[in-house]
Amino acid sequence: MPKRVDHHARRTLIADALMRVAADRGLEAVSLRHVAAEAGVSTGMVQHYFRTKDEMMTFAMETVGERTEARLTAAVEALGESPAPKALVRTLLTGLLPLDEPRRAEGRVALAFLAYSAARPRVAAALREDAAGMREVLAGRIRAAQDAGDAPEELDPDHAATALLALVDGLGVHVLGEHYAPETALAVLDAHLDTVFGPSPH
Amino acid sequence: MPKRVDHHARRTLIADALMRVAADRGLEAVSLRHVAAEAGVSTGMVQHYFRTKDEMMTFAMETVGERTEARLTAAVEALGESPAPKALVRTLLTGLLPLDEPRRAEGRVALAFLAYSAARPRVAAALREDAAGMREVLAGRIRAAQDAGDAPEELDPDHAATALLALVDGLGVHVLGEHYAPETALAVLDAHLDTVFGPSPH
Repeated sequence: MPKRVDHHARRTLIADALMRVAADRGLEAVSLRHVAAEAGVSTGMVQHYFRTKDEMMTFAMETVGERTEARLTAAVEALGESPAPKALVRTLLTGLLPLDEPRRAEGRVALAFLAYSAARPRVAAALREDAAGMREVLAGRIRAAQDAGDAPEELDPDHAATALLALVDGLGVHVLGEHYAPETALAVLDAHLDTVFGPSPH
Repeated sequence: MPKRVDHHARRTLIADALMRVAADRGLEAVSLRHVAAEAGVSTGMVQHYFRTKDEMMTFAMETVGERTEARLTAAVEALGESPAPKALVRTLLTGLLPLDEPRRAEGRVALAFLAYSAARPRVAAALREDAAGMREVLAGRIRAAQDAGDAPEELDPDHAATALLALVDGLGVHVLGEHYAPETALAVLDAHLDTVFGPSPH
């Protein structure tokens, strides 16, 4: 009888080890052997998840993507049924900011992936799709706010959504570089959300 | 008599070679030997400019910083004396977007540096100062527009400046990742500038 293997647990073990060594060294300096040593497993097991640098970078970005999605889903569910567009958008966008250490570590991995994939457009394809999906969600909520009379009609929802995601990614990069405190990034995001959706209590 | 050495020409030679290999391979994969081979000089000469990975990343970022500053200075001078705050701000910010291939190459280097320095705050110090200086310039122009009645009084100039720089850096990252065309980034920036300074012909 073949051994039963918990693939989810194994994947989580490798992904956790990769995130830890990436946080210490920077993802660009990490090798398969580093990850195997950190996870306490054979390099052969790590190779099951990635063999090349491209595959490692993609695996790391998938890990960050899955964790971000799980966090955003939980945060949106906590808003209850039919949240107001502004509350939903704010929850999604603050969920993308590196406001605590686990998210800082994920942000550093995302930044390393962005830098790596900027010279390798093929590697960046999944990220492009994720970003397009997020822009669509944001544009949909802006349209809903416009329909409800809660956002200016003259706003182009697609441009406004593109601006929101670019703003949050830029704020995230600056917070990771310690240009200013996470609180400043939040205040700047809130001021911008007010220009899109009008001022409102959070 | 010692040989006379044109340090500026030599530095430019090394910097150009570094930018070219970084554009091909991604900066994180570049070594001293790659740069020496590309420049057609000895590794010893390259070592005069950087010896360690930290020094190479810093040298690359300084190169990008100097080229960006020269480009921005020329663009601002072309505006003539006492340009309107909105025109000045737009000129500075569009100068930071990766709208052509040389600026895309510089943008990729900047992204690699950001990723590298996110795990090494000491290396990031110069970048932090540059960004703070740019935010101050932007905030000053927003204050000037407020004084002239051309920007809403309720705007916090520091927050608005932080948002502008984050927006442009985020747009730049997305354009480098080919999430959308440079023209989209420009249109989004212009829409945002209109919310800060009011609509106006460019």
